[in-house]
Amino acid sequence: MENRIALNDNLSLSRIVHGYWRLRDWNLSDDHLLKLIEQVLELGITSFDHADIYGNHTCEAYFGRALAKRPELREKMELISKCGIKMATDYNPELDIKIYDYSTEYIIKQAETSLKNLGTDRLDLLLLHRPAPFFNPEEVAKAFDQLRSSGKVLNFGVSNFSPAQFDTLQSYLDMPLATNQVEISVSCLEHFENDNTEYFLKHKIKPMAWSPLAGGAIFNPKTEKDQRLTAELKSIAAELNTDIDQVMYAWLLKHPTGIMPIVGSQHINRIKSAVDALEIELSLEQWYKIYIASKGEDLP
Amino acid sequence: MENRIALNDNLSLSRIVHGYWRLRDWNLSDDHLLKLIEQVLELGITSFDHADIYGNHTCEAYFGRALAKRPELREKMELISKCGIKMATDYNPELDIKIYDYSTEYIIKQAETSLKNLGTDRLDLLLLHRPAPFFNPEEVAKAFDQLRSSGKVLNFGVSNFSPAQFDTLQSYLDMPLATNQVEISVSCLEHFENDNTEYFLKHKIKPMAWSPLAGGAIFNPKTEKDQRLTAELKSIAAELNTDIDQVMYAWLLKHPTGIMPIVGSQHINRIKSAVDALEIELSLEQWYKIYIASKGEDLP
Amino acid sequence: MENRIALNDNLSLSRIVHGYWRLRDWNLSDDHLLKLIEQVLELGITSFDHADIYGNHTCEAYFGRALAKRPELREKMELISKCGIKMATDYNPELDIKIYDYSTEYIIKQAETSLKNLGTDRLDLLLLHRPAPFFNPEEVAKAFDQLRSSGKVLNFGVSNFSPAQFDTLQSYLDMPLATNQVEISVSCLEHFENDNTEYFLKHKIKPMAWSPLAGGAIFNPKTEKDQRLTAELKSIAAELNTDIDQVMYAWLLKHPTGIMPIVGSQHINRIKSAVDALEIELSLEQWYKIYIASKGEDLP
Repeated sequence: MENRIALNDNLSLSRIVHGYWRLRDWNLSDDHLLKLIEQVLELGITSFDHADIYGNHTCEAYFGRALAKRPELREKMELISKCGIKMATDYNPELDIKIYDYSTEYIIKQAETSLKNLGTDRLDLLLLHRPAPFFNPEEVAKAFDQLRSSGKVLNFGVSNFSPAQFDTLQSYLDMPLATNQVEISVSCLEHFENDNTEYFLKHKIKPMAWSPLAGGAIFNPKTEKDQRLTAELKSIAAELNTDIDQVMYAWLLKHPTGIMPIVGSQHINRIKSAVDALEIELSLEQWYKIYIASKGEDLP
Repeated sequence: MENRIALNDNLSLSRIVHGYWRLRDWNLSDDHLLKLIEQVLELGITSFDHADIYGNHTCEAYFGRALAKRPELREKMELISKCGIKMATDYNPELDIKIYDYSTEYIIKQAETSLKNLGTDRLDLLLLHRPAPFFNPEEVAKAFDQLRSSGKVLNFGVSNFSPAQFDTLQSYLDMPLATNQVEISVSCLEHFENDNTEYFLKHKIKPMAWSPLAGGAIFNPKTEKDQRLTAELKSIAAELNTDIDQVMYAWLLKHPTGIMPIVGSQHINRIKSAVDALEIELSLEQWYKIYIASKGEDLP
Repeated sequence: MENRIALNDNLSLSRIVHGYWRLRDWNLSDDHLLKLIEQVLELGITSFDHADIYGNHTCEAYFGRALAKRPELREKMELISKCGIKMATDYNPELDIKIYDYSTEYIIKQAETSLKNLGTDRLDLLLLHRPAPFFNPEEVAKAFDQLRSSGKVLNFGVSNFSPAQFDTLQSYLDMPLATNQVEISVSCLEHFENDNTEYFLKHKIKPMAWSPLAGGAIFNPKTEKDQRLTAELKSIAAELNTDIDQVMYAWLLKHPTGIMPIVGSQHINRIKSAVDALEIELSLEQWYKIYIASKGEDLP
């Protein structure tokens, strides 16, 4: 299977994306993190997923410090970030509760902060982190325009949006949104059931998948559903002579929408496992066996 | 905040609308009602919301009798009515049950009855009262065409429609539907969750909001949800040095869709309170605190 | 009421369609089946609904054997089939579970098998049997193109699709999908509530209705809902001096979407009953009484 995927004429990502949600918890020195980045790049993974808020606004700066040791690597990678969530932490001492802020000013402020923390002059892709009940697409369009004109952000997308939310924002923009980053895994079928899969196919939007291994529950199954899934995944892994996380990645990769799994591990062997899944081909029956194990019922 | 809102090139409404759902229950003499209308107009409220069926088909005639005492006021106001619901009352003795009738004939008949009862030669806006499982958009388009050609109705809209229902009717018409009157309040978030908010934003449709004070439950909260809401509203009202109904109006008015609250009170001080809310500005955090109190859970 | 309905410029069906889901269970000799087909044609029913899988892949061949005795009848009928469901039976010994296969190859293979079994050189209409979570519209478009170019299938449609599923597939095709065959009956209101009715009206798609008599539960009502429905249907049947299955057909036929009921009976008098329903006109109130009996609550 191709190890890259074109989102539009100007942007292609590696099919497997490396995610830095938990970077702070990894407790890596700058040198160790740089080493990890180098190894990830060697695997053909060039796309790195961040968000302003990861690690309570610390992860991007960790990454930036490591990257500063070999700044020439920047040209070999696509940097992705997200904005819009405003946490009630010391970063926003004025807030009592978490809110979403999609004002022109806040989007620009956070994009510029991400640039500074990552130590780069541009983001390849900026995503709106979550849909919001208070959302003014005109404000967003203004922010995107300014960020694009100034060359600070090259492409824009969203995360966790429904078809109606995507469609509405798109109608205010003169550029196509590049992607929608949503939760998809053998355990999370939500986007097969809310019209998003159909929307992706119709508009040829390739989704990024967060939590592609279902948050680890499959490795230590407690619920009946997880036990069904684990048993099925093990059986198929045995048929294919591989392990169950590869089967979970292969299940995502086979789907016609062109899913890009985000691997959130610090262990290069587990990251490599995702890349190797590009060579595994599930049969259609194997794909459905996993789907049916997840649903807990046969097809109608 | 602007006290008027343009729905299209030919129709603008006052941002606050006066609603006559309960006019019969107010037991006002014609003179008292005229006085109320005059006071409402003086507040800058020029849009008056009716329906054929209000007060079992009596309210429009009450209003018409008062208006007849100062017919020149007609030129200062926008009259809105609705049709389509057929009640099983003495008005329709042939019926055993309430039904919806969107035949060409019935729409025209009811629009003409509203004209007669209101004592006017034209409606500024006629709404279909509720979506119906038996609905022929061709019949509706025919009725709208005839009513428009004859000058009896200047603009058309709907009430309580979903995006798919609005979109389908719109596709049969050669004029844009002017609005969708739906229930929105701090307590009723339905239209934030059924794609209508997104549809309004995409198509730049300004919704009218019925029951904008949640039917009064907030003033005498019984459920856990209402108690959460009341506590939050009181706290914010104190911060802003105002009262909770103004906060409820300000919450609606702040939203980017351009919501027009329909005030259903006969008390001029309560109506003025809604108009004064145009000058209150909630912070984004205050807006979300109310939203979250209503949902009963933090944002994801 | 018209006894035919145009789906596009090239295809019209009889308003009542004869369905062969249970043909195997009828245990008819070829001569008896031919007789039935002749009688059905005499009633003005020219459209015959099949699927590759009916009777575990046997029904189409039964029909083909009967038709072979009077091949000239082919010119008087529209033959409809479906494909995409792959059962875990002896027909697909390699399968452990039922799956859906919408690969180019499988669609073409099954269409060709239907042609062979029915003993005809063309299908008037081929439907995709069910929507699928694994669905590549490019593969489907390729199959449809080849089947149309070769003259093997003249028109295409779907079955049990949602608006988003229909819309997405349509966007990959250069011909309009002719219909969506869904379950609609006095008991099954699903497609009044999932935006399909609106979609049908907007795009002027006439739906075919499977199980139009609600699978017979109305004739022997066990649930509260079925008892309500049966009582209402009996009362209306008495008013109209007819029987309840005719009322159920008339309820479908009255709806503005242009529903085509599929009658699945082997008994010519019951089939004739459906055709005779074309002459029965329910009042709007009768239509709503049935709808309300089904819902169990008055209109809002």
